[in-house]
Amino acid sequence: MAELTGKSIIGYRRGTQEGNPSYGYNPASGEQMAPAYFPASAAEVDLAAQLAGRAFASYRRLPGRKKAAFLRKIAEGIEALGEILVTRGSQETGLPAGRITMETGRTCGQLRLFADLVEEGSWVDARIDRANAQRQPLPKPDVRSMLQALGPVVVFAPSNFPLAFSVAGGDTASALAGGNPVIVKAHHAHPGTAELAGNVICEAARACDLPEGVFSLLYGAGSEVGMALVKHPAVKAVGFTGSRAAGQALMQAAASRPEPIPVYAEMSSINPFVILPGALRKDLAELAAGLHGSVTLGAGQFCTNPGLVLLPDDANAASFTVKLATLMSNSDRFTMLTPGTCSSYHAGVSTRAHDTRVTTVVKQAVEPGNTGCHSGAALFQTDGASFLADPELGAEIFGPSTLLVNYSNREQLLEIVHALEGQLTATVHGTEQDLNDFSDLLAVLETRVGRLIFNGFPTGVEVCHAMVHGGPFPATSDGRSTSVGTRAILRFARQVCYQSFPDSALPSELESNNPLKIWRMVDGNLSRDPLA
Amino acid sequence: MAELTGKSIIGYRRGTQEGNPSYGYNPASGEQMAPAYFPASAAEVDLAAQLAGRAFASYRRLPGRKKAAFLRKIAEGIEALGEILVTRGSQETGLPAGRITMETGRTCGQLRLFADLVEEGSWVDARIDRANAQRQPLPKPDVRSMLQALGPVVVFAPSNFPLAFSVAGGDTASALAGGNPVIVKAHHAHPGTAELAGNVICEAARACDLPEGVFSLLYGAGSEVGMALVKHPAVKAVGFTGSRAAGQALMQAAASRPEPIPVYAEMSSINPFVILPGALRKDLAELAAGLHGSVTLGAGQFCTNPGLVLLPDDANAASFTVKLATLMSNSDRFTMLTPGTCSSYHAGVSTRAHDTRVTTVVKQAVEPGNTGCHSGAALFQTDGASFLADPELGAEIFGPSTLLVNYSNREQLLEIVHALEGQLTATVHGTEQDLNDFSDLLAVLETRVGRLIFNGFPTGVEVCHAMVHGGPFPATSDGRSTSVGTRAILRFARQVCYQSFPDSALPSELESNNPLKIWRMVDGNLSRDPLA
Repeated sequence: MAELTGKSIIGYRRGTQEGNPSYGYNPASGEQMAPAYFPASAAEVDLAAQLAGRAFASYRRLPGRKKAAFLRKIAEGIEALGEILVTRGSQETGLPAGRITMETGRTCGQLRLFADLVEEGSWVDARIDRANAQRQPLPKPDVRSMLQALGPVVVFAPSNFPLAFSVAGGDTASALAGGNPVIVKAHHAHPGTAELAGNVICEAARACDLPEGVFSLLYGAGSEVGMALVKHPAVKAVGFTGSRAAGQALMQAAASRPEPIPVYAEMSSINPFVILPGALRKDLAELAAGLHGSVTLGAGQFCTNPGLVLLPDDANAASFTVKLATLMSNSDRFTMLTPGTCSSYHAGVSTRAHDTRVTTVVKQAVEPGNTGCHSGAALFQTDGASFLADPELGAEIFGPSTLLVNYSNREQLLEIVHALEGQLTATVHGTEQDLNDFSDLLAVLETRVGRLIFNGFPTGVEVCHAMVHGGPFPATSDGRSTSVGTRAILRFARQVCYQSFPDSALPSELESNNPLKIWRMVDGNLSRDPLA
Repeated sequence: MAELTGKSIIGYRRGTQEGNPSYGYNPASGEQMAPAYFPASAAEVDLAAQLAGRAFASYRRLPGRKKAAFLRKIAEGIEALGEILVTRGSQETGLPAGRITMETGRTCGQLRLFADLVEEGSWVDARIDRANAQRQPLPKPDVRSMLQALGPVVVFAPSNFPLAFSVAGGDTASALAGGNPVIVKAHHAHPGTAELAGNVICEAARACDLPEGVFSLLYGAGSEVGMALVKHPAVKAVGFTGSRAAGQALMQAAASRPEPIPVYAEMSSINPFVILPGALRKDLAELAAGLHGSVTLGAGQFCTNPGLVLLPDDANAASFTVKLATLMSNSDRFTMLTPGTCSSYHAGVSTRAHDTRVTTVVKQAVEPGNTGCHSGAALFQTDGASFLADPELGAEIFGPSTLLVNYSNREQLLEIVHALEGQLTATVHGTEQDLNDFSDLLAVLETRVGRLIFNGFPTGVEVCHAMVHGGPFPATSDGRSTSVGTRAILRFARQVCYQSFPDSALPSELESNNPLKIWRMVDGNLSRDPLA
């Protein structure tokens, strides 16, 4: 693994090897992995932010096709890593090689989707209201506006998607696509994977002749390096995926700056999974298999993991529960991402198992030992009244576990859903007739979540134009945004308006003859034509 | 003025007459105006918020045409007030009748613009990505999404636009249009005007058979009634126009809630007005007259008032300054909005006049006395080096005053612009050649402001699709937003996603046959067609 240096990437430079190093860790074997990774110093943090601020001045004004070329170059570079990336990624995370390969595909697909988006160009929401010198009582001026980049964005990578949400992941892709330099704070759980991706981005930036500072990758603690970045005046926005506590600390820090900046933090979600009566008159084995697959996928370490299952309290539900319990208890044992994730999971499972209001249906035994991060599946059950008495019973346990809550009737189901906090997703299983009968349930869920799924499973987030991976607080810090799909680019953009400017001084997107042939709103109507 | 009761409007109910009342005040005559206005009690605040939360459940789901009918009904009602509104509005604010009439037109125009927008319906950014069961390695699900309402919005009305930014103003119109109930915290400076508009909205809601709580209007102090509203769990967003201190207090309160909510605060801006050399080779008298008109319009009490004029340091600039000074010193005296605004203005002018780094070019005398709020124009001048040494020299003085800063050369001009905080607007005067020669200046201004104006004046904000009335902090709390123009509706909306839902359970906007014939993004392409 000669490529790995253990140094931060600061524009086109490399960080020093000073301070207390940390190491990659193989959660399957429990082995520490070389090389040592050194934290960015305060001066290095400042340098990365300063370089990003300077790079912003020219990078923001590059045509979409040049940003697209950069993103595509990154995708090519990541693909070219091939087995090196799969091997290191898998070793550092305990995720199987097939998962890393799939995530590589998703990562490169995202980069190319954003490349296509900015090359086409209509995403800027160009708007033109034409002048009317004859209007009474006052002439109407020519007014044009379009989205432009916000400024340098700090991206905090999470542990559970070492590629698709990490260094070259969705936040980085959407920020770079929109014209914003990016500084990634690497997650300590996959430092080598991070460096591999970081090298690719750095080389792609060079190859595309981009200004130094359009990308940096810094190692170090979130509480030090991360906080210093969030507080740096050159930084204009933050993308984060991780725990609620860390996300809220960033929100607080960003709001307390002399110039407050937006934080897009994706934090926690238990993703309610509602089984309506009709679903239990269909194939129970299929439903149980689907839910088992979703709860245990990636050792349950997904933000969209269904951690709360609401189901009726009848004989069909009991049959379903038996089937699900059988699958859960026969699960292969799991390797979890990090010792921290693993011990949190075990603590969460243990606490819930000792809760007298909760029945432990399945709790797979895991041999203790200090050879890595291993866990088993867990299935819990309680009744609607107990849950309503203390919704904290459903607190997120990050891992292959879920809580069944049997609702006694329709009113209780509605009451439970009303009591839920903001969520990334909610899933409903049933018949079309159920959807009709429970339209009031859907109406409440719409106000609680970013995405509703019918007769499907919340894990597996499609990267597309219509996707919303977001949701009201505390699922995210900003329920108006999505971190997956092309709408993610809107997070790091602001509308800038030009009044009475000649074509020669306007961005191409707003020129009268529409040289980029993008969709524009002209006097309120969408059009790709030049102005008449 | 029999219509005025002095009571808050809480859904379809009226507030009590308890607590310490306040009164309207005629700033021209210094007279107190009946009736007494009583502050909403804590219970009334809670009731208004609860009603808004309940109304949200049904109001958010109304079709666009019904929301449009409501907005149009409000516009009709405001127009029907006629002279009653003009008289009370003018008396309470000191603004001339003609201004109130024009502002009435703008207010109703805004309401109708949003009515048209939501009736047409494409604003919801509907997106559909179709399923593909054959896709490898995994089938692609059907994913659809659209913007939906955020929830109850609290609107803080400012003093300087008693109609267009007040009770039935832009924030209210955009929030209601998007499906959000509104609670307005009335500004104490125009309580009667507020009640007149509030009655109209309340009656329009009744006439449209809307749920109680879709609108409330509360009287009382911002620090009590306003803060209680911002902290209420039923409230989901805040619109504010006013001072930086008050705006920042709201931002802090909203960020500190258990569930943080967005605050759209428009706070302060000095709106740099840059005169490039070519502008001084044109008609100096015309430029001076235009600038004088913009600085003194509405007694300078506009958020887009040009409070900082950057101009060369040469003979042409000196001639221009003489012409401007003559106009300023011949200004009619001004009636200001409130005693507070007036004393702040006098204090600001006095402080600046005593600053040894600043030359007082004009300071119109105003006879002291206690018969209202009167002021005169003031024109100050300093040089670029002094300004750079302390940009606080340019701090906002809300009123008919501006500061000329003579820049010694191009580099100094750029340095000054680099040092500016976020602004609502920047104006550039010059030739097309100047724009070309100073493209680096424009590039910096683009990152500092919401709107750039060429050879025009920043006051007079066109209400249209392309307008941006916003800008980076501290001009606003959220530089990604606009409070004027149709894009303002996006502030109070969030995208909600539906995966694999049948048409029967989808909002009309997302149904396959596109019954509303709105523009939608289908597999990445804009289309108004039904799905094939």
